[in-house]
Amino acid sequence: MIQSFTIDGKRMEERLKKLSEMGQTKDGGVHRMALSEDDFQAQELVAEWMRQAGMTVRRDHFCNLIGRREGKGSGKPVIMMGSHIDSVPNGGRFDGTIGVIGAIEAVQAIHDAGLQTEYPIEVVAFCDEEGPRFSGGLFGSQGMVGRIQPGDLQKKDAQGITRYEALKRFDLNPDRMADSIRIPGEIKVYLEMHIEQGPYLESINEPVGIVTGIAGPAWIGVKVKGEAGHAGTVPMHLRKDPMVGAAEIILAIHRICGKDPSAPTVGTVGKIQSFPGGSNVIPEGVEFTVDIRDIDLSRRDRVMAEIRSAIDEICGRYQLQVEIEENMNVLPVECSDHVVKAMQEASESLGLQAPKMVSGAGHDAMLLADIADMGMIFVRCRNGISHSPKEWAETEDIVKGTKLLLGTVLNYV
Amino acid sequence: MIQSFTIDGKRMEERLKKLSEMGQTKDGGVHRMALSEDDFQAQELVAEWMRQAGMTVRRDHFCNLIGRREGKGSGKPVIMMGSHIDSVPNGGRFDGTIGVIGAIEAVQAIHDAGLQTEYPIEVVAFCDEEGPRFSGGLFGSQGMVGRIQPGDLQKKDAQGITRYEALKRFDLNPDRMADSIRIPGEIKVYLEMHIEQGPYLESINEPVGIVTGIAGPAWIGVKVKGEAGHAGTVPMHLRKDPMVGAAEIILAIHRICGKDPSAPTVGTVGKIQSFPGGSNVIPEGVEFTVDIRDIDLSRRDRVMAEIRSAIDEICGRYQLQVEIEENMNVLPVECSDHVVKAMQEASESLGLQAPKMVSGAGHDAMLLADIADMGMIFVRCRNGISHSPKEWAETEDIVKGTKLLLGTVLNYV
Repeated sequence: MIQSFTIDGKRMEERLKKLSEMGQTKDGGVHRMALSEDDFQAQELVAEWMRQAGMTVRRDHFCNLIGRREGKGSGKPVIMMGSHIDSVPNGGRFDGTIGVIGAIEAVQAIHDAGLQTEYPIEVVAFCDEEGPRFSGGLFGSQGMVGRIQPGDLQKKDAQGITRYEALKRFDLNPDRMADSIRIPGEIKVYLEMHIEQGPYLESINEPVGIVTGIAGPAWIGVKVKGEAGHAGTVPMHLRKDPMVGAAEIILAIHRICGKDPSAPTVGTVGKIQSFPGGSNVIPEGVEFTVDIRDIDLSRRDRVMAEIRSAIDEICGRYQLQVEIEENMNVLPVECSDHVVKAMQEASESLGLQAPKMVSGAGHDAMLLADIADMGMIFVRCRNGISHSPKEWAETEDIVKGTKLLLGTVLNYV
Repeated sequence: MIQSFTIDGKRMEERLKKLSEMGQTKDGGVHRMALSEDDFQAQELVAEWMRQAGMTVRRDHFCNLIGRREGKGSGKPVIMMGSHIDSVPNGGRFDGTIGVIGAIEAVQAIHDAGLQTEYPIEVVAFCDEEGPRFSGGLFGSQGMVGRIQPGDLQKKDAQGITRYEALKRFDLNPDRMADSIRIPGEIKVYLEMHIEQGPYLESINEPVGIVTGIAGPAWIGVKVKGEAGHAGTVPMHLRKDPMVGAAEIILAIHRICGKDPSAPTVGTVGKIQSFPGGSNVIPEGVEFTVDIRDIDLSRRDRVMAEIRSAIDEICGRYQLQVEIEENMNVLPVECSDHVVKAMQEASESLGLQAPKMVSGAGHDAMLLADIADMGMIFVRCRNGISHSPKEWAETEDIVKGTKLLLGTVLNYV
């Protein structure tokens, strides 16, 4: 059945290019902050493409851009597809955008085929998934599921503009945001296509993957404290050097997270700092972040407990003090079994062997899971790179992902 | 013989306190930048104490404050004692100052005893030993031995004032600095007393130590480069994480420097940074400093070679690139045998068991060794702490050090 619909790869490629011109950086990257002039221009462009695909377009009070194609009856729940079109500072052109343009393309194909669906279809470009401007992402999807409080709108950007003011400038009325919240039952299923942002599909030479769940990150901040001293005057055996303790902890995290190669557990120390930080001073303290993710909450908790006990053991051995701060603890989210199944069937009928895989990154879909059944499709990206001007996905792969998305949607409409 | 001279501990304690009021910080520390108004006031105070001890006082063109008590004949080489009175930002009251005040006290004792010496005695408060203001220390002692070039005077402080201008403001003539250089033969011996700045004397419960040499630091900067990635999306086995490589290198440095407990080799990683440094980003690069010191140059070189080969092995294993930059390479300096011997004899006659030890920190004495025989005395300091308001040395210990200094001087005058 999918074969009778047309996905126009050339059009999608042109649209991705066109969209990348809104907020384009000198080195070919995209710098499109949410609720900026560039974001507005990009939304206008996307709105126009939605209309071409037979949708009516509106913005909700979270500045989510929503295109809607009605189904046969009224009062039916929505089949929703989407992603986001804002970018990180100096990011790439594919992150988020392929999910929006792919969803529009899928609706276009349905529209061109003259298919009258049972259920209404909506395509959403969620506002501010990335979150750098107001230090907090997934705004539009959090808003849609009712997770945004009025106080959250008082966060300021670097220029001192609140999100509230920024929404007002887009002619929205944030005081009425409650009107834009969707409740369970309103959305039958939410489908999102996204670049993988990791190297897995490339490493197994597959263009697309079927996401079975989104790993929840647990973040801790570790402060190891020892005794500062002059680099030249404290004999090695009299030192209480937090740098050495921190190094051993970092290796322990790497070992603990990697020991079961069949598990998708990942652990990362991305940021580290020593105090006072002089090259000729044994540090008094070393601080670093730990990001642990897994799709299986109990395994993630087990790994975290193992890391904490390694930290205690190591700090005890080096006579160091340690403080651990819990900075984030997001629950992993599972994709709906019937969506995964629908995707597998679509994959087969397209002659693809899309593997099942876990999303290590967070996505709007994670929030939509609060109120709807949900599924995600990943598209291979070059070298696993994202959030960079070097971010790249082949049109051919995006087309395969879009066909898989369409095939899945057809199962529900 | 030493017993017939009087060292006045109470006076030294009062002078150290008085000096600490020039540039005192709120938490009882000392913030006395070289060539500042506070430094000027402190020099004036020290000059007055020099005069009281029977010395004539001048400043040379490097702003070294020099007190001189003539000997019997003219044209004889000088017996020089000294240290510095400038501090690091928010430092303590003992670092440097005890060497200057102790030297003045020793001259005062000689003066009070009416001893006419064969050789002239000079006490020097060297300018800018610490070096934070113009990013380069040991200025006065480098100047005295002829290591300062006119270009070095063009270094600016944070306010854009050059050292040249700062010297001018002290009514000195840096254009005539060549006149202030001392040459081999002019100084018979240079003696410096200083707080240990390390925990060794405290750990063996001895008030003073005899320095046999000053370890030379070798500094390298290590840049480990891997592959940046999203903390959630790159499986552990596909990572090229420079944080993990850096951690293993830091542990290797600690192991290599500590493996011979009888050697004074020390190795420190004091400063570390990751790029881009996001808590949810596998770093692209990690940079850190390495400071290796030893009194034995060949052993230090061997240790450094071993560290470099460990770095290569580790980076190879994790598929990381590495760049190593040599940032400093100061040769270790040995104290003169006859000075060490004179100190040991003085120690015995004072009923002390001053142990021989190595200085891990650099001192003005290291420069004076270029043109003169040299020796140093270390005084125990609490918890080995220096460069901090918590820096502390007991008057009783400073008195013992000063007696040892006097006893050593008496061997030469």
